[in-house]
Amino acid sequence: MKITLKDGSVINYEQSKTAYEIAEDISSGLARMACAAEVDGELVDLRTVIDKDCELNILTFNDEGGKEAFHHTSSHVLAEAVKRLYPHAKLAIGPAIENGFYYDFDMEPLDRESLDKIEQEMKKIIKEGSNIERFELPRDEAIKLMEEKGESYKVELINELPEDEVISFYRQGDFVDLCAGPHLMSTKPIKAFKLISSSGAYWRGDENNKMLTRVYGTSFTKKKDLDDYLAHLEEVKKRDHNRLGREMELFTTVDVIGQGLPLLMPKGARIVQLLQRWIEDEEEKRGYLLTKTPFMAKSDLYKISGHWDHYRDGMFIIGDEEDEDGAYALRPMTCPFQYYVYKNSQKSYRDLPVRYNETSTLFRNEDSGEMHGLIRVRQFTLAEGHIICTPEQVEGEIRDCLDLINYIMTTLGIIDKVTFRLSKWDPNNKQKYIGSEDEWERTQSILRNILLEMGLEFLEAEGEAAFYGPKIDIQFKNVHGKEDTIITVQLDNSIAEKFDMYYVDKDGEKKRPYIIHRSSIGCYERTLAMLIEQFAGQFPTWLCPEQVRILPLSEKFHEYGNKVLAKLKENGIRATIDERAEKIGYKIREARLDRIPYQIILGQKEAENNVISLRSRYLGDEGQKDLDTFIDEICKEIRTKAIREIEVQE
Amino acid sequence: MKITLKDGSVINYEQSKTAYEIAEDISSGLARMACAAEVDGELVDLRTVIDKDCELNILTFNDEGGKEAFHHTSSHVLAEAVKRLYPHAKLAIGPAIENGFYYDFDMEPLDRESLDKIEQEMKKIIKEGSNIERFELPRDEAIKLMEEKGESYKVELINELPEDEVISFYRQGDFVDLCAGPHLMSTKPIKAFKLISSSGAYWRGDENNKMLTRVYGTSFTKKKDLDDYLAHLEEVKKRDHNRLGREMELFTTVDVIGQGLPLLMPKGARIVQLLQRWIEDEEEKRGYLLTKTPFMAKSDLYKISGHWDHYRDGMFIIGDEEDEDGAYALRPMTCPFQYYVYKNSQKSYRDLPVRYNETSTLFRNEDSGEMHGLIRVRQFTLAEGHIICTPEQVEGEIRDCLDLINYIMTTLGIIDKVTFRLSKWDPNNKQKYIGSEDEWERTQSILRNILLEMGLEFLEAEGEAAFYGPKIDIQFKNVHGKEDTIITVQLDNSIAEKFDMYYVDKDGEKKRPYIIHRSSIGCYERTLAMLIEQFAGQFPTWLCPEQVRILPLSEKFHEYGNKVLAKLKENGIRATIDERAEKIGYKIREARLDRIPYQIILGQKEAENNVISLRSRYLGDEGQKDLDTFIDEICKEIRTKAIREIEVQE
Repeated sequence: MKITLKDGSVINYEQSKTAYEIAEDISSGLARMACAAEVDGELVDLRTVIDKDCELNILTFNDEGGKEAFHHTSSHVLAEAVKRLYPHAKLAIGPAIENGFYYDFDMEPLDRESLDKIEQEMKKIIKEGSNIERFELPRDEAIKLMEEKGESYKVELINELPEDEVISFYRQGDFVDLCAGPHLMSTKPIKAFKLISSSGAYWRGDENNKMLTRVYGTSFTKKKDLDDYLAHLEEVKKRDHNRLGREMELFTTVDVIGQGLPLLMPKGARIVQLLQRWIEDEEEKRGYLLTKTPFMAKSDLYKISGHWDHYRDGMFIIGDEEDEDGAYALRPMTCPFQYYVYKNSQKSYRDLPVRYNETSTLFRNEDSGEMHGLIRVRQFTLAEGHIICTPEQVEGEIRDCLDLINYIMTTLGIIDKVTFRLSKWDPNNKQKYIGSEDEWERTQSILRNILLEMGLEFLEAEGEAAFYGPKIDIQFKNVHGKEDTIITVQLDNSIAEKFDMYYVDKDGEKKRPYIIHRSSIGCYERTLAMLIEQFAGQFPTWLCPEQVRILPLSEKFHEYGNKVLAKLKENGIRATIDERAEKIGYKIREARLDRIPYQIILGQKEAENNVISLRSRYLGDEGQKDLDTFIDEICKEIRTKAIREIEVQE
Repeated sequence: MKITLKDGSVINYEQSKTAYEIAEDISSGLARMACAAEVDGELVDLRTVIDKDCELNILTFNDEGGKEAFHHTSSHVLAEAVKRLYPHAKLAIGPAIENGFYYDFDMEPLDRESLDKIEQEMKKIIKEGSNIERFELPRDEAIKLMEEKGESYKVELINELPEDEVISFYRQGDFVDLCAGPHLMSTKPIKAFKLISSSGAYWRGDENNKMLTRVYGTSFTKKKDLDDYLAHLEEVKKRDHNRLGREMELFTTVDVIGQGLPLLMPKGARIVQLLQRWIEDEEEKRGYLLTKTPFMAKSDLYKISGHWDHYRDGMFIIGDEEDEDGAYALRPMTCPFQYYVYKNSQKSYRDLPVRYNETSTLFRNEDSGEMHGLIRVRQFTLAEGHIICTPEQVEGEIRDCLDLINYIMTTLGIIDKVTFRLSKWDPNNKQKYIGSEDEWERTQSILRNILLEMGLEFLEAEGEAAFYGPKIDIQFKNVHGKEDTIITVQLDNSIAEKFDMYYVDKDGEKKRPYIIHRSSIGCYERTLAMLIEQFAGQFPTWLCPEQVRILPLSEKFHEYGNKVLAKLKENGIRATIDERAEKIGYKIREARLDRIPYQIILGQKEAENNVISLRSRYLGDEGQKDLDTFIDEICKEIRTKAIREIEVQE
């Protein structure tokens, strides 16, 4: 038989061999690293016997499939350790997941101490380094084996397998588990692992079932990789907006109000207010006209837009079409509302382009399981806008949209964290789209050229366009590594027809305009989440709810402190004074924990010389300063929306 | 019999007399003025025979009941005139209404010319001055009479009268109408009348019935009163926000979006944005903490607040309590959302008062018949806030609330148009309220003293308090004379218990705070409506969407014009340039119609001397000016929110 390897080389064999044996033939190093294999594109166990011509790819930890087998074997080691320490625990399921694995046990909850003990036992098992064997059983014998071991969940699983399914088990030492594989050849390669956490999980995810104990873990082939990953997890935990945002009292959620409906607390509301004013002002400068349109509309509107037939499940519906007053829906987008602002009077080519923006509240009926912090919510505020223009104006307008986005992302310091994506149609699936191939090629190349000319790095993605036209998506990865589209700029050549929008052209003819759907900063709740994670809560000064805190050394200096406070406020600086009878060290520590960028410390010397002592989170102790100098400096920092580098770690 | 008159005097009669005869006995002047009478408080016809002791009040046009009879007779004169000119017209109903009367006819629509013709005929009828007679008929004869005259609507009305109802008619000359009265003694006293307008109206207001032609009119006893009223109507029409606001493209409504859901167009949205920023900033200065809380919540929340049981019909409900996800409601107020912001962390007496504000969107499920412009809407934005404080802080906080309201109303130039009202409980209806008499007297006198000390004129109104405490209402009359409460400040001593809100007092005990519910500017949509009517669209400069328009005399001066434009924009002034090839007179007229406060006219002289020529709506031609001087002046006007007086009428 003829085995074609990934690099194209071919090995010939007279008789059948396992994938592992072939790996050994290629090199002993590869065999040592091997975790699984791919035969003609299908993921298989290394133990798989190969007896005919095929393409073979030996997978290591660096391949997705190899990593999966590695993590899956790690979960079996975990299960073996738990069974040794807690013989009464019953096994449920234990798959590999992204970045690790878990196993669900029917047993008491486990605290950190118990996890540490289990880790010790796992180390022993790995040191023992048992070979892992695979075997198959007929259904009745398989059930019998699991019943003997008291594994009732496994019996349930076997009973549900299709008639003709091969029922396989993996054994390491005394431990046997029902499993489809693939697995490593032995437990030995699991050099570095960690049990991350334990939590409750319903059997089969159904809240009507019993609550089981789930243990999460991760494993690597090298200790260094594990350490890096754990450090990363620590950092994620520190920055995670859903934890830090609550801790900093930027937002909260309330059970009786509901999931996905966060309350912005005063500090969070202040940041969003500052962002909104900035965007509204910047867009005004760029020729946008602000609108403020209602958050609900009759079903009639959504029938025209198509949402009633195609997006009803995603909307919150009020009333019923049978009612006298009809049905209403909370809006999932602002488009048709701004179309009617456009349609309020007849427009000529001289009026175009018309650029409407709105700080717009939208509602989407997300599943309750999908809600997350400020990222997945049911109500959010979008910097939304629609540009209505002639075909000739499209290119310039899109360029301006990208220029605005670029300016905003740069100012917020996250331009390096976003990627641009040109989302195109799928030429192999033309029936999903409207418009001709020529039109698609033309509009896509308009967008491509703009991205190229502006020097913005971008990927091209087929099949990601809207059905009516191509778009540019701005992508952002959160601390957990999850990528979301945060902003889009869409070109729309078809909606004007539906809403009968037109302009009177030079020749006196009524023509359909192009419509560009666009955001500039995206959704404010999500932007706040991004900023929390980007700055670990240490926002740029211009966005800080409290920019300066004055700390008098004692009551004697309260008067001077209040004079300084008044001067700061006069200059529009958000400042407070801490007049509590606490030690200065305590006050400084608290101001740092509150993430105030500047602290002004006032005592005898400062009062006498009419100066201030400044501490900043950027440089630490900045020494004595003239108050006016400081005001000039911080006002400039605020005005320019500067992001000062943090050079000390206090 | 003994007749007691309104002034307490008594007249004795041996035999029965009509009310009109008694009026003649009192004085011939009174009889001439008499329109109707009141016998023991009941409105009756002057023809009513009085045959026993009673209190009698002769009503003239200056009394509500007298005016009603006067207007009602006017409507009969209208009907007679229509029947003379359009014998085919069928009579429906013709009541007196506030400020006049109408009559519905089954006939073709009437234009202004036809109304003028009808007015001429009415004049004839009044000149003829027929006496008006009342007579009664048994049901079958009444039906027969109306059938003979072909008045099928009247037949329908008679058929629906209760069995024992007296069926009365009034006759003037040849004209007879089914009518319960009361009416004047003749058509002669209708000295001054006017047919205002004509429109379609469904029979019985039901859109399934036939559309009739309704004619509105008004009438007075003196020509001067009619002229004053017509002048007032003209002024109202000029200022009516629902007309002017649409004409100025400040807002619009759209059928497929729905009633009571206005769209703020760019100019209206700009004004609201400016107002909102002003209020948010002013409240920040006064120690308020901004929140941004969700617009919907689970029914659970409204069960705690009591809205679910007592206000469900007023709310928009989403979903059903039986659904997996439960029921939600759009919020009609922000209170509980801010309570949960308060409850997010434990508060001590040192943290109080806490003042929360929010630019808050609210929803109320008003009946579709009640919707009106920006005044009665289903979604609106309120400058809402809640102060949570100790009992000792209540007085100071309420004073500060009123001070803020006073500042805002003064700045907007409407302080003279608002009245303050102390809304008290009803001591004769104690079961409607909670709390003791002492507590009510105490809190009411706190509010009264604050109003007195601040020198704010106010009325006291019994029975207008909330059930939990007294409040101060700020009342405003719109151009139509309708009074609304636009702002309230409420004292609440009971809600903290429901939401388990507390603070830890000096003594370490948990105590219930007082809560003050308050607004500062009220609702923004309504404020915009008020400002439109107050200024007839000529907003103070700081609120104008467009503050300056530059009008170059010809293309030669576009360059200079654009330099001036850039300079104005640099200074934050909202300016545009009119570069169209139109005559200067045309451009000036248009700028005036667009209600731009300042026009800058640029030609040869201005360009050479580097100056501007200024026209303002305040003084008309203001002559040449240095640009910097003008910028200083207008910036000061904007910064101080000045209201310049309009001294010219162009």
